[in-house]
Amino acid sequence: MSQQQLAEKVIERLMAADARINALLGLTLASIEPGRASCQLTVRLELVNSHNFCHGGVIFALADTALAYASCSTNRSGVTQAASINFIRPAKLGDVLTATAVVEQDGRRASACSVRVTNQLNQLVALVTAANLRFDEPVIELES
Amino acid sequence: MSQQQLAEKVIERLMAADARINALLGLTLASIEPGRASCQLTVRLELVNSHNFCHGGVIFALADTALAYASCSTNRSGVTQAASINFIRPAKLGDVLTATAVVEQDGRRASACSVRVTNQLNQLVALVTAANLRFDEPVIELES
Amino acid sequence: MSQQQLAEKVIERLMAADARINALLGLTLASIEPGRASCQLTVRLELVNSHNFCHGGVIFALADTALAYASCSTNRSGVTQAASINFIRPAKLGDVLTATAVVEQDGRRASACSVRVTNQLNQLVALVTAANLRFDEPVIELES
Amino acid sequence: MSQQQLAEKVIERLMAADARINALLGLTLASIEPGRASCQLTVRLELVNSHNFCHGGVIFALADTALAYASCSTNRSGVTQAASINFIRPAKLGDVLTATAVVEQDGRRASACSVRVTNQLNQLVALVTAANLRFDEPVIELES
Repeated sequence: MSQQQLAEKVIERLMAADARINALLGLTLASIEPGRASCQLTVRLELVNSHNFCHGGVIFALADTALAYASCSTNRSGVTQAASINFIRPAKLGDVLTATAVVEQDGRRASACSVRVTNQLNQLVALVTAANLRFDEPVIELES
Repeated sequence: MSQQQLAEKVIERLMAADARINALLGLTLASIEPGRASCQLTVRLELVNSHNFCHGGVIFALADTALAYASCSTNRSGVTQAASINFIRPAKLGDVLTATAVVEQDGRRASACSVRVTNQLNQLVALVTAANLRFDEPVIELES
Repeated sequence: MSQQQLAEKVIERLMAADARINALLGLTLASIEPGRASCQLTVRLELVNSHNFCHGGVIFALADTALAYASCSTNRSGVTQAASINFIRPAKLGDVLTATAVVEQDGRRASACSVRVTNQLNQLVALVTAANLRFDEPVIELES
Repeated sequence: MSQQQLAEKVIERLMAADARINALLGLTLASIEPGRASCQLTVRLELVNSHNFCHGGVIFALADTALAYASCSTNRSGVTQAASINFIRPAKLGDVLTATAVVEQDGRRASACSVRVTNQLNQLVALVTAANLRFDEPVIELES
């Protein structure tokens, strides 16, 4: 199995696990490769406040999902330990947001990711960086 | 109107604006006073992954809402500019999470908040700190 | 040896290791107990810019040292993996800054700390939170 | 005066203001252009602990200076309101560190920067993101 095929199989597993919350948010996978993942969502009416601005927690959730998928794409399980978000520009009703996460470094016990969230005009909406803890188990068991 | 009454009126307005997203998350207000707000949600099935752990984005959204309410409770509008979250302990299916936000400092153009998210056993689930930008407008216009 | 005596012995070791940088910054230990540490420095001329405001990096360094000492005070070694800082109020020439770090949670492989930096009037200057990685080695070997 | 000349004049002013702290750290300017700045320092003996690892506070101070210079390079004054740092790889005695800061967005009242700190092998040492508050004054007064 190639690294790309492995990444796809891992994300399939993770997305099955996250199916309910992803459906709640309307979150979909846009692309996956080893060490990199993009997720999308459309800012629908349920996700905005009275100014038609998307809730910051939704933007964070989108970024957090992309970084979890990027981080696990090499079949190493882990969890987000700490993350920071900079809100750059409001996301509005109808905007299509894309969060692209890149694994910046991957160590034995920890990894670091950065995420850029952009809108459909490719304008920057938010920046996220995260520190992850690694577990010794793979996400999916490979037959030897 | 007392400061407490003003805080309650402001939060009523904000919660009307956030009604849809709060309903989506199951988020409710637990308490409000000037400079301090607590919000709650129960970790229901739609908010967890296959390990029955609550999505980190949901925990962030809960904290972000509490800090917005605390920050605006003195009738000063504003937005979260940057926030960081430390995930301390997983939240599980059925847990009742409470995010308590405190305004640590309130300046003319910026404010800072810290938030503690705990579960029903009063165990720490997450720590959030945030920097907010202040606008010159009030949340609600007061008759003179 | 009591937990308090152990904490003191550990910090003695760490401060010997940090002697040069601590001297450069003028950083001293104010207090230590298991899971909690306070460090101080006076904002002297070399640490300020032309507005007589202390460099943000110095405030971070003070907080980072306090959190390292708090984190290691139970004789568990580790490193800061990620940290965030909120600058609340400027520190000025002549101010005496105290950073008090508290271990909020201590797990097998990770820990979390929060730090409050205050001035001599007990006004809040900065808030720091940090996520730490734990190593399996103690800071100091204990004779059995 | 071109935007590049303006950036150089602004940084000259800021570096004069920071002369003492930059000398203490051994921090120098590597490059400046509108919206982007690089600063360097060599990890000398005074900046390391007993494992010969550079103090995290020094790495933060280097990044914080680069982001301040990038942020002010268009002759808009401001201060760092919040910042987060991910420590990726230790910096060691003798390493030459470069922090390159980029202004990701620049608004009327706030801006956002990201910084990458690398060593002489171009390996990533730390990632920093920051939210800045803008003041209405320029760094240097221009004759009309």
